[in-house]
Order: sequence, then structure tokens, then C-alpha cells
Amino acid sequence: MITRPNLTINAERLWSSLMEMAKIGGTPKGGCNRQALTEEDREGRALFRRWCEAAGATVRTDPLGSMFAHREGTEDLPPVLIGSHLDTQPTGGKFDGVLGVLAGLEILRLLNEAGIRTRHPIEVVNWTNEEGCRFAPAMLASAGFAGVLSPDAVMETRDAAGTRFGDALSAIGIEPDAPLGGRKIAAYLELHIEQGPILEAEGADLGIVTGGQGLYWYDIEITGFESHAGSTPMPRRADALVAAARLIEAVQAIGLKAGPAGVATVGQMEVRPNSRNVIPGSVFLTVDLRHPDLATLSGMDQALRDAVAGLGGERLAFSIREVAATAPMGFDPQLVAMLREEASRMGLKHRDIISGAGHDAFHIAKIAPAAMIFTPCREGISHNEAEHIEPEQAQDGANLLLRAALRLADGEILGRVET
Amino acid sequence: MITRPNLTINAERLWSSLMEMAKIGGTPKGGCNRQALTEEDREGRALFRRWCEAAGATVRTDPLGSMFAHREGTEDLPPVLIGSHLDTQPTGGKFDGVLGVLAGLEILRLLNEAGIRTRHPIEVVNWTNEEGCRFAPAMLASAGFAGVLSPDAVMETRDAAGTRFGDALSAIGIEPDAPLGGRKIAAYLELHIEQGPILEAEGADLGIVTGGQGLYWYDIEITGFESHAGSTPMPRRADALVAAARLIEAVQAIGLKAGPAGVATVGQMEVRPNSRNVIPGSVFLTVDLRHPDLATLSGMDQALRDAVAGLGGERLAFSIREVAATAPMGFDPQLVAMLREEASRMGLKHRDIISGAGHDAFHIAKIAPAAMIFTPCREGISHNEAEHIEPEQAQDGANLLLRAALRLADGEILGRVET
Repeated sequence: MITRPNLTINAERLWSSLMEMAKIGGTPKGGCNRQALTEEDREGRALFRRWCEAAGATVRTDPLGSMFAHREGTEDLPPVLIGSHLDTQPTGGKFDGVLGVLAGLEILRLLNEAGIRTRHPIEVVNWTNEEGCRFAPAMLASAGFAGVLSPDAVMETRDAAGTRFGDALSAIGIEPDAPLGGRKIAAYLELHIEQGPILEAEGADLGIVTGGQGLYWYDIEITGFESHAGSTPMPRRADALVAAARLIEAVQAIGLKAGPAGVATVGQMEVRPNSRNVIPGSVFLTVDLRHPDLATLSGMDQALRDAVAGLGGERLAFSIREVAATAPMGFDPQLVAMLREEASRMGLKHRDIISGAGHDAFHIAKIAPAAMIFTPCREGISHNEAEHIEPEQAQDGANLLLRAALRLADGEILGRVET
Repeated sequence: MITRPNLTINAERLWSSLMEMAKIGGTPKGGCNRQALTEEDREGRALFRRWCEAAGATVRTDPLGSMFAHREGTEDLPPVLIGSHLDTQPTGGKFDGVLGVLAGLEILRLLNEAGIRTRHPIEVVNWTNEEGCRFAPAMLASAGFAGVLSPDAVMETRDAAGTRFGDALSAIGIEPDAPLGGRKIAAYLELHIEQGPILEAEGADLGIVTGGQGLYWYDIEITGFESHAGSTPMPRRADALVAAARLIEAVQAIGLKAGPAGVATVGQMEVRPNSRNVIPGSVFLTVDLRHPDLATLSGMDQALRDAVAGLGGERLAFSIREVAATAPMGFDPQLVAMLREEASRMGLKHRDIISGAGHDAFHIAKIAPAAMIFTPCREGISHNEAEHIEPEQAQDGANLLLRAALRLADGEILGRVET
């Protein structure tokens, strides 16, 4: 095993780059609006490219717009890939995604300064359209890279204005000069903010992400009978909203019963005709169930279906449609163990955590050993202009990323150490 | 007391007039879209005027557009007023309001045919903008007539497009030739469809309306904390929609407890940000409480306020605002007794009923003895193109209206009989 001097990233430079990038699409409330393949994204990409090239890396772009800043290794080996995404929500923050990309950039800069060569190349990636707020679903380009979606399917995706993903790429001058995937990746590491309150609440410095929750999404339609709120006696009503209220409580109970790792949410709802003095005739609502264990998740699914079936009554009809299903995923156990070990060596308080949100790393884990690091974020707030992390948290996360990336790039591969 | 031959209305002519009027603004689904002060309303008014004038009545229009078709009496006495409204909901039916107006017209026609003179004049009224779907609130012109609203307030009311009520009157060529109210009305009778399921369910031929429910309307805002549905553990949530679900169930319980005369409804609801994978940060909803007894209604109000207060918790805030309040009202007891008596004489199965919906008669009851007759309607459906009554039901209602109107126009006034 190669031993390295006790390298640490330049925390001020990382923070300064984060703040500089945040100016592009910066909002009055201190957030960012740099949605995928917009003019702001073009500017952000150009800045990232300048920084990478100044750090001696070669930047290539794949047909879906994902950017790879390549730093040569000493041997002809597959790269260690580190990164995340630069696109944001319309009222997003400065750190979601950006931290992982710019921590990767900072590692390139640091290795140059320290004159360090690694056996494997290191590549810093900026995945296109992680957020999914412009082109749905989220994580489109990493899905294409990993073969989860066909490139055609990605290119034909349209935003709300009807613009094709492929046309949006051309519109901001993206000229691909690398093929889509199809090459070996030694390992993938992604540093990201938690986007939840767990680490902060427990006073942890870092989270070692062991995997992602499995997920079921449902569309549920409740049909009752629309009638006059004044002249329809209570016993003669078929009130779709009262039925919906019972279902919302049932969903809450399903989540609580599956805790602490399980969650269950009704996030979206439409009441019809939605008039103050009309008994609702129908209600549409969505259910989101998540759990890291497939058997438990299946039990939650069954409990939801039972709850829906149990609501049926005279003149009340229900339909339930599954609109998305993702099995729970686990990151590479040896990468996870390495991250734990390095975090402990750094003297940081860390804990294992399951990601409740989706990340590009979930797709890349299908084609390469992958793992993630979470930093706490203030009050768990994300997808919000108020999203915030402390400079020390960015520093800790980037240093752990550095240490793991170096071990991998020096040749430590999945359970054995090449010397 | 004057005795009359056993008069009955011409049921075929009444039905034929109803069908003829329904063509104006007729919808493909068999309903009507003849909203107040539209081109369709202008046509409907013109047809009504032609029919009234052909029946020898003098039609006058007050400054708020309400039309009064006057049939002379033999003495200089205040008129017996009968009628309702010709305007409809955008997807309304053929009978709501129209039945009461055209039953009045049929009475004029019948009295002419039979050569009957009454001591009091009889006037058939078409109140402007009863529905309130174009200009809110409902029953604008009868409120102005009864002095409940000032004429200026009515004239300045605007529709969703910003059009003033006053300008909409002029736009369809209405030229007032009568003052607004300010004259004595001997009595007011209104025949209307029930717009609820009670009469049909109990097999009653007619309902004698004893009064109207008191009503409270509220706007309620629930504020929780918006966060990620995947990464926020159940115990750390402040889910505004789960709180709303509990409130909806509490409102339902308040209605059931106040039954059979009480009703409680959440009709309108807005979930924010209304995204499938975001825990709702805030919810707006409305509550509608009604009961014919003021003390019980006040108890329902208190129960609602207690339920709202009881929902408060960490990071969950609630506000409740009363946006409308109407005390329960009772119709004139002697008119109600007369209607019961005549219905029994006709051999009809009748029952007392409280109106859950609002009607022009509620306003007119403030300035004259007033009462209402309800006919059953199929499945209680109204404000709907599927609204339906049987010709026999229209006939029964119109005959009861005729008998009561004749007794009043012959001089039987409130508890004593003038001969």
C-alpha cells in the first residue's frame, strides 16, 4: 500500500469555489436557480470547465451532457470517478450536488499542488439533470450512463414547455466528444448533503451511506358523490374527502409502524370540485412509501392496499395504481467499510445512514463499486434557498472523499490491496 | 272567505314551458348554462316577458334587474308575490329556480282562462343573480330588494372577469322602470326543487319548508414544515396534511353528532407545495357548519374551535377565520300552516323540511310573510346537468302554490280571513 503524507484539502479554496459557483443563478434569498440545460447551467458548466482545465484535467462531455474532468494516472487503469451534479431546483440551495462536484475539483487542485501521482486516473464528474425538476425523471444522465435508460429515451424527454432534452443540450452549445458509458469505472464516490435532519439531530459529523431506500409510488383515486353541503344529511353522504382523510391517517400509521427506517407520505392531493359548499365528489392523492428492507417495504405495500380496500363503502369507489417501484439498494460493502475506517481515523463522529432521496450514485452502483458520504445540513432543509452547511462540514466531507479516493486511486480495489 | 272552483294548473303547459326555457343555454348533456346577465339570460328574460305579457300581465324591472309580472287585483292592495329565479349554474339543470318562476306564470295563465279575479294583485318575480356563480354572493338582487344589501354594493359587485354588476345589466339592455323595493308585499311564496335527497328518500310528494339553517363558514390555515418525503423520519415531521386529515375527521364527527338536522363539510382544500415527494408544509381548507337551531350551531362552532386548538403541536400552527355567519331563519308560521293544510287537502304526502341551501325567500322573509314549497328531485342532484324532476312533481308543487296564492290573494292574511 502506498503511503501518503497527511493530505488535507484547502477548505477556504473549496468554500470560495462553492460561493463563486453559487453566484450563477443566485437568487435574492441566497439560493440558486441553475436548472439543467438552461443559460445558467451553461455558465456553471463553463466555469467548472475552466477550473478543471486550470487544474490540468482534460474535460470530455458525453452525449447526454455529463462532464468528466480526467486527471491522468500513472498506469493504464480505469478511473476512480468522484462527483455529483451542478444543476439545482428552481428555488434550490448552494450545496445540493455542487458540494460533491467542487470537492472533486478541490482534490484535483490539491493533488497538483502536492505533486502527487496516482496509479488510477481520477475523474471528476458533473452529471446532467440530476434534479428532475426540468426534465423528469431525476438522474436522467447517470441513468443513461449506467444503461438504466436508453440514450434515445433520455434525448426524447421533454420539459414542461415541450423542449426535447436533446434540443436543450444543443441550445446551450454542448458538443459531445466522448461516448456514453461503455467503459470500466474502478469505483464511484459521491459526497452530498444529507437533505434530512438525522445527522444534525444526532450530532454526527458525517454519514456513511450504506444504501438507498426502496420506494413505491402510487396514484389513488377516490370517487364518492358530489352533492350540496347544505341539503345533504350526514348519513346520506358519500364524501370522497372524508374517505381521503382516513386514508391519509392510515398512511401515517403505516409509516410510523415501519419506523425508524420507514417513511410514508401523502404529498399531493386534488379535491374536486373544490368548492366551499359542495361535498367533494372525488379526490386524487399520491402515496410515497419507502423502506431499506424489501420485505418490510412489501408489507407496507400490502398494508396500504388493505387500507384502501377497507375504505370502500356504499357509493364510494377506490382505485390504486402503482406508478413507480424501486427496490432497496446497497452500496459496495468494502467501499462503505473503507469510508467508515477513514472517518474514524480522522477522529470524526460518523454513523451509517440510509439515503431517503435518490442520487446518481444509485445508478452508477449498477456498473461499478460505489458509495456515498453525507454531510449534515442545517435543520435538514434542502431543495430550498435556505439550504445551508457550515464550511467545516464541507471540509470534513471533502477530506473523507480525498482519503478514500486516494486509497482507491492508489490501487486498493475491493477487498484486496494492490501494492 | 271566497270559494273557488277546484282549479288545477295545466301540467302539460307548465312542462312545455319548462322545456322551452331550457333550450336557452341548453347544454349537450341536457342541462342549462344561463348565468346571470349573460346573453342567454337576456334571451330567457325576453321569453319570460313575452309569456307574461301574453298572459295580460304588466312587466316591470327594478334597478337590480329583477322582473315583476303584475296581474291586477280588484282592490288597491299590496301584491301577493310568487316566483324564484331564471339564472342557472354554468353546468346547471332545467329546474333549479326556473320551476318557481314558470309555475307562477302558469298560475297567471290559468287565472285568465278561468276568468278569476283576485282581491290582491298577483306578481310573478324573477330575481336577478340568485346563483352567485357569476356575481358572488348568491341572491344579490333579492338582498337589495329587501334592504339586506345596499343597491350600490350590489351594483359594484364584479364577476371573475372584472365586469361590474351594473355594467352587466346595461350590457344586456336592461332598462329599469320600477323603484327598488320600498313597497308593501302581502306575502311571498317560492316553489323550488329540494336540491337534496330527503323527500325522495322518504317518498314524500312535497316538502313544506319551515325555515333555513344557520350557517358558519371558516377559512383554516395549517402551517407545518415542508421537507423531503424520503429523508425526513416520521417522528421529525410536521406534516400539515396529516393534521388536516385529523381536522376533516373532527368536522365529520361534529356533523354526525349534530344530526339529523346538522351538517358539517370540508369542501375546499389546497395542499402546498403539492408535490409527490415533499411533506406538505401548509394546507388551506374551508369548513361549512349548518344547523337550524342557533344554540346547537354555536355548540358546533365551539367544537370546531376546540378541534383546531387541539391539533396544535410542535412546529404545527393553525389559524381559523370566520368568513360568513347567518343565523337560522324561520318562515311565517301561518303561511307554513296554510301550506300544510292545502297539501293535506290535495291528498299529498308532505313533510316539514329545513332548507339546507340559501334562497331568495330568506331575504324576502325579512320584509314580508314568506314561505317555500319544495318538490323532490331525483337522487337529490342539483347544480348539475343531470338535475331532474318528474312532470307530476312539478304539477303537485305548482298546484300547492296555486291554492296558497289564491287564498292569500283572496284576502286571507296572516291568521285572519277577510271576507
